[in-house]
Amino acid sequence: MAGDGSDQRALQYEQTLMYGRYTQELGVYAKEEAARLRESGQRRSVSDRSRTLDLLEYDKGRCAKCRICTVRCQKFLISRVGEDWIFLILLGLLMALVSWVVDFCIAICLQAQKWMYGGLDSNVFLQYLAWVTYPVVLITFSAGFTQILAPQAVGSGIPEMKTILRGVVLKEYLTFKTFVAKVIGLTCALGSGMPLGKEGPFVHIASLCAALLSKFMSLFGGIYENESRNIEMLAAACAVGVGCCFAAPIGGVLFSIEVTSTFFAVRNYWRGFFAATFSAFIFRVLAVWNRDEETITALFKTRFRLDFPFDLQELPAFAVIGIASGFGGALFVYLNRLIVQFIRKQKAINRFLMKKRLLYPALVTLLVSTLTFPPGFGQFMAGKLTQKESLVTLLDNRTWAKQGIAEEFDYIGHSQAWKHPQVNVFVTLVLFIVMKFWMSALATTIPVPCGAFMPVFVIGAAFGRLVGESMAAWFPDGIHTDGTIYPIVPGGYAVVGAAALSGAVTHTVSTAVIVFELTGQISHILPVMIAVILANAVAQSLQPSLYDSIIRIKKLPYLPELGWGHHEKYNIRVEDIMVRDVRYITLNCCYRDLHNVLLTGHLKTLALVESAESMILLGSIERAQLQSLLSQQLGRPRRLEYIRERAVAEKKRMSVLSNPGSDDGSQRVSQEVRFQISTEESTFSPVRPVAPKPLKPALKRPSVVERPTEIPTSPQDNSGIALKNLFCASPETEGLEDDGDVEDDMTIREISEWEEMQLDEQVNFNNCKIDPAPFQLVERTSLHKTHTIFSLLGLDHAYVTSIGRLIGVVSLKELRKAIEGSVTVKGVKVRPPLASFRDSGTSSSENEATELHKLWDRHKSMSLPREHTPSESDEKSQ
Amino acid sequence: MAGDGSDQRALQYEQTLMYGRYTQELGVYAKEEAARLRESGQRRSVSDRSRTLDLLEYDKGRCAKCRICTVRCQKFLISRVGEDWIFLILLGLLMALVSWVVDFCIAICLQAQKWMYGGLDSNVFLQYLAWVTYPVVLITFSAGFTQILAPQAVGSGIPEMKTILRGVVLKEYLTFKTFVAKVIGLTCALGSGMPLGKEGPFVHIASLCAALLSKFMSLFGGIYENESRNIEMLAAACAVGVGCCFAAPIGGVLFSIEVTSTFFAVRNYWRGFFAATFSAFIFRVLAVWNRDEETITALFKTRFRLDFPFDLQELPAFAVIGIASGFGGALFVYLNRLIVQFIRKQKAINRFLMKKRLLYPALVTLLVSTLTFPPGFGQFMAGKLTQKESLVTLLDNRTWAKQGIAEEFDYIGHSQAWKHPQVNVFVTLVLFIVMKFWMSALATTIPVPCGAFMPVFVIGAAFGRLVGESMAAWFPDGIHTDGTIYPIVPGGYAVVGAAALSGAVTHTVSTAVIVFELTGQISHILPVMIAVILANAVAQSLQPSLYDSIIRIKKLPYLPELGWGHHEKYNIRVEDIMVRDVRYITLNCCYRDLHNVLLTGHLKTLALVESAESMILLGSIERAQLQSLLSQQLGRPRRLEYIRERAVAEKKRMSVLSNPGSDDGSQRVSQEVRFQISTEESTFSPVRPVAPKPLKPALKRPSVVERPTEIPTSPQDNSGIALKNLFCASPETEGLEDDGDVEDDMTIREISEWEEMQLDEQVNFNNCKIDPAPFQLVERTSLHKTHTIFSLLGLDHAYVTSIGRLIGVVSLKELRKAIEGSVTVKGVKVRPPLASFRDSGTSSSENEATELHKLWDRHKSMSLPREHTPSESDEKSQ
Repeated sequence: MAGDGSDQRALQYEQTLMYGRYTQELGVYAKEEAARLRESGQRRSVSDRSRTLDLLEYDKGRCAKCRICTVRCQKFLISRVGEDWIFLILLGLLMALVSWVVDFCIAICLQAQKWMYGGLDSNVFLQYLAWVTYPVVLITFSAGFTQILAPQAVGSGIPEMKTILRGVVLKEYLTFKTFVAKVIGLTCALGSGMPLGKEGPFVHIASLCAALLSKFMSLFGGIYENESRNIEMLAAACAVGVGCCFAAPIGGVLFSIEVTSTFFAVRNYWRGFFAATFSAFIFRVLAVWNRDEETITALFKTRFRLDFPFDLQELPAFAVIGIASGFGGALFVYLNRLIVQFIRKQKAINRFLMKKRLLYPALVTLLVSTLTFPPGFGQFMAGKLTQKESLVTLLDNRTWAKQGIAEEFDYIGHSQAWKHPQVNVFVTLVLFIVMKFWMSALATTIPVPCGAFMPVFVIGAAFGRLVGESMAAWFPDGIHTDGTIYPIVPGGYAVVGAAALSGAVTHTVSTAVIVFELTGQISHILPVMIAVILANAVAQSLQPSLYDSIIRIKKLPYLPELGWGHHEKYNIRVEDIMVRDVRYITLNCCYRDLHNVLLTGHLKTLALVESAESMILLGSIERAQLQSLLSQQLGRPRRLEYIRERAVAEKKRMSVLSNPGSDDGSQRVSQEVRFQISTEESTFSPVRPVAPKPLKPALKRPSVVERPTEIPTSPQDNSGIALKNLFCASPETEGLEDDGDVEDDMTIREISEWEEMQLDEQVNFNNCKIDPAPFQLVERTSLHKTHTIFSLLGLDHAYVTSIGRLIGVVSLKELRKAIEGSVTVKGVKVRPPLASFRDSGTSSSENEATELHKLWDRHKSMSLPREHTPSESDEKSQ
Repeated sequence: MAGDGSDQRALQYEQTLMYGRYTQELGVYAKEEAARLRESGQRRSVSDRSRTLDLLEYDKGRCAKCRICTVRCQKFLISRVGEDWIFLILLGLLMALVSWVVDFCIAICLQAQKWMYGGLDSNVFLQYLAWVTYPVVLITFSAGFTQILAPQAVGSGIPEMKTILRGVVLKEYLTFKTFVAKVIGLTCALGSGMPLGKEGPFVHIASLCAALLSKFMSLFGGIYENESRNIEMLAAACAVGVGCCFAAPIGGVLFSIEVTSTFFAVRNYWRGFFAATFSAFIFRVLAVWNRDEETITALFKTRFRLDFPFDLQELPAFAVIGIASGFGGALFVYLNRLIVQFIRKQKAINRFLMKKRLLYPALVTLLVSTLTFPPGFGQFMAGKLTQKESLVTLLDNRTWAKQGIAEEFDYIGHSQAWKHPQVNVFVTLVLFIVMKFWMSALATTIPVPCGAFMPVFVIGAAFGRLVGESMAAWFPDGIHTDGTIYPIVPGGYAVVGAAALSGAVTHTVSTAVIVFELTGQISHILPVMIAVILANAVAQSLQPSLYDSIIRIKKLPYLPELGWGHHEKYNIRVEDIMVRDVRYITLNCCYRDLHNVLLTGHLKTLALVESAESMILLGSIERAQLQSLLSQQLGRPRRLEYIRERAVAEKKRMSVLSNPGSDDGSQRVSQEVRFQISTEESTFSPVRPVAPKPLKPALKRPSVVERPTEIPTSPQDNSGIALKNLFCASPETEGLEDDGDVEDDMTIREISEWEEMQLDEQVNFNNCKIDPAPFQLVERTSLHKTHTIFSLLGLDHAYVTSIGRLIGVVSLKELRKAIEGSVTVKGVKVRPPLASFRDSGTSSSENEATELHKLWDRHKSMSLPREHTPSESDEKSQ
């Protein structure tokens, strides 16, 4: 089933080339799937428990005490295993190992490329071939591998995690296949030396780990089946992902909170810290054990002087870095989206790439690696250096441009790559920044598992370095005037730039903390904070964050944030945005209404009201429940039972009316009885053949019917005509197996008549699961509050009631529209249509005295726009 | 009014000596007050708006455009002023100034003491007198000053802020008086040199600043009146408080989140960072401008080596520090609570201290300063050093105990205080830790504005130093075995110890970040994180945090946290903890029911149901609304109107029956009419004299009656007998002013009869404000989810419904009981009585199919325990 779905999706090249397009149905389907799994899991645990009880019962005669003791011990052990901290330690350990192994493999891949390149230094053409072919092969392999195994592994994964933590179940994102595809794909992609990052995918990998570990642990205990706990664990896993990627536990926790959560429960805080610290610790200990490091230190250790890190008068320069980074970050997000949209829109390119789906990654890789070829253009932009090496050199605490004459400086180690005999170090830096900027924006659109954080971080560092070197050239003896000479430290500027640009792209301030943890120095805290905040202020007012941008491109079901202090949010009310035309069913409705409602709408849940007149909201029912109610009413078992009963009644009548003993005439007489009954019921509405409608694909899936509910019906039983209209699934498999004792001798026409009869019966909701307290809002709830409640509780819809009466519904879609309508991408604020109307009105508090008299005479017919549903939708469906 | 209340409270010495005791009523009252203010504020803004409109209307004839333009400009300016960032910058600036001035004054105070002590070195006795008298005077002044001006300023303020951010309005905590008292009291208290902290009070001061600034800014714009915005700003202010106190913006934000919030909106994150960064920046810039520092650096800068901060094999020692700090932190909290409870319980001491309320602070100060007297016992515990100096020396990067012989080391500067000719440095450190430990626990119970963070921080640093020095003595050449000698850095241990102990006492992990920002070095990140997490794990399983402990002592209305991964929380359901005996009113109830409900209960809101049979929840009504309904029904204007109408009717009847024109007979005849009516209505329940009950003090306040509702009644109008029973307020002021045209000639008996008549009328809810969607839960909602929802939305009660029918209510109290019942202070877990019952039952999912048939025949009488309320409470009240 899932394989089928993923194969289907795998066929759509566009999805996987660029960020795939996911319709609402997909998420809904995934959620239903998850609900089904959860339900069956619950049932399993219940049966497990009863089995244990049976066991106790059985052994009572023999050594009951001993058995009970064993069971208790087992339970104790299980409860220990169920403790959060054991889970978190395992998760941390696992992720540290994964991170280290991935890093190790990447390092080997990069070394291999360097070795090939170095070995072929006799022939430039061969050198070029080796330099270019190697990444092309790796990237193509990575793209193909993820494409085949799990297309969900493509991209960063943070947008998806954001959506999942919002409460939307994207189940296919947390499978073992995705894990394998992501890890291997990421290793190959980063091993190619392309400007790609590790952070985003690691957030996804950690979440995958947590989900799989949770599934594994649930073999031992029951606690792992709790959904809210799983969400908590996923949130911790995101922190672990960043933490073990950068060995930055604090920054990891904060970054993951900022990037994935809307609201954060402080009581989950320790989980993230605990797991991320443990993970970062193990990650660094592995490096020590591998003799890479002498002891546990920062990943990109800097050695700036501590006594005088910067002068007060340098702060304007830092502020400039911040503001420029803000613009740069917004530009990056814009460029990235532009590339995706350009390739999507160009029909010709698209069609061509559709056919050869690995061509796009190969072409992009070829372009990028050609430009970085060290003997070619690469010499002007330190193309020889890997991402890690560039960063190390950029954070160097020595000044490259002493007194403006770059040549005098003796470059040691990798720093030499920045030196070019003909070209100034400033030119190199500028070229590096410009080239890497568009390269990174382009490379992150390749359909391989990759993030954009690290490339952006390096570009930011280079930009900071550029400013720092300029400052150092401008003030060779530092700015400080009090006698002591404190030369300017360009490395500090690089740190500030890195934090600012990555903060601007991701819309986070915690990049500041990550920078401190990465460099192991916190001396530049104030400049970094100032620059990051300024960069955020600029970037947030221009563009959404990179992750939000991807969410929009992918059309993931996510609620956008309210922007920076948009006051008008307090003025929009739910009544301005709600949908007044609610689909509902009444307590005394008949199956026909149910049928019609199911046919016309495609909402996941339906409101249950007392009656169409009172509209008092009693609860909400899941669509699937209604479907099973309907299939139970119209299903084959019930029809067979009807035939059986009819036969018995006929027999009785026969025995009373004529000579008793003629059992064989039942078949002939039954038709009379049927007609008799159908004429009895002919006072009902005339039979209306229901026209088949184009239904939503989610409905077409047999799984909807297969869903295990309390009613034991198999899909083959749903062979009724009305149901066929509803489900459109395998109509030819009708009535192949009989009960044996009763023959299904009804003709199609008879069945249709019987069904019409059944449809007119009143629905019996007794066995139906009803959510008795669906979330309710009031008309005057502000948009701000609605947004808060939706994001806090992970709702996807809420009913709007007025003193218990249902008057509307608000779903994520309306909310999203309302928010995006007032805050467009360009930062121009458009007021919602109704808010201004209200403002100019006399006063709002007068209306707040709720008009209860409406309720007083609620048995009169109401002038609500919701009266027509049963009749109108009937007509529509014809 | 507020002054009256605070004076009343000021009389109770116990409150202010130890943490005051606040009953639920106080909070409720405060909330009502706030609601009243909010309401009037809304009305004002509405009238403002209409005034603007009037202005526009008026000027239309003349230069309308010009006027409109002006108004628009004004509006634009106001909206700019209303921007968050301007507010935050102002707040940051203000707090930085306050922090700097306070620090400056404290430094002067401490210098003065040193100067006095130094100047009198000829005579030890005089020296002692000076050493002791100075702090006693300062502390006594501080205690007296806060006592007189604003007793709310006593203590840390974090517990109160936690409660306020939870949604409970403790209005008297955010007044200008409290601000002045807190700032001056804190300066004096810290100037005395007692082991007291600055952080907690600064959180409070920043919140005060924010509240006052918000009030001030609301003169310009309307946005400042929004409550949810104020909460957001208060949250940011807490971050500013910590940020400007330690110049630690990141740590400040995190600490304030951990300490004050349960759930945190990530969209508010930037506010905290922005304001705290700006504040910390200004705070440090002021130091540079004052020539204290050369440039912006950390407050307690350390200079540990960067290349090899610690060896992997030192980690067990760090873990030991963490675990020991955990126990120490729990002990500190326990000790602190013990002292408070001991002094409270001892009647004799209490009575004595009641009389001389400044004696307790004086005695404690005397004791502490005597023990720290440098020539006396102080010489063995570095008594000469101020808190700041101790911390600086403890974080020193040199080793004090080289090769176990402390004497060989040349102590420079303040470090000399730790050296004693006869006594080992280890003994000094142990004495310092032990003495300061109980001294700090004792000193923080003094009724002055003070925190416990800094003292605990110093003790932790000393403990870490002790372990570090021991390690250095044990491994003189370091543990590292690979040739290079890396000696152990005891200062690093001090950093770890400080973070761990303060983390254990406050139950936060962000002390780690604070430590990095305070020292300006992040090299020890992993040891610090490990120690802090271990300390938290130990301390959280033993004791509540210091702030939660104070909340319990003060009985503030706060919801405790769910502990670390207590799984049983998922098993308790709302039905186990809810109160089934809900007070409700029905849609068709009469005023008598209203009266009875108001008399018997003291809940803030009452449920409104459709009828006692259906129990369908329609909404909730505030108590005050009902009171005003009742007072409207029984009030004097209505009675006068009744008399007038009666007179008119009598006149008419007269004109019909007998000779027209005898106007003066109205008084005599009126009685007949009255009797006539009362016999007409005699089919109603017999008149019951309502006995006066001891009412809650909140009800006694005239403010409850004065509350401005839509109904224009002045308190003097509520002179009815039934109302008097309800309000018990000034019964002698009856009927002093008449309307003039009608005489109130009814006797007491007549009035009582008239009122009985009125009480039997059906309530008209038309003008009543009803909350049409009070928060609803279902019986099967888990405790975990309930807790989440309560803390997320800041609820204080929620109704439990089953398919629209009200079956119970859960308030904060029940929730608190349920949580504290299952997790006792000692860490022993007691399962709630009903949870085990359910577990042993067969299956829970079977019951989940909600029994809708109950609703089907809901017009039959229900077997709910909620049928008796109107009648029973009637009887109770008699």
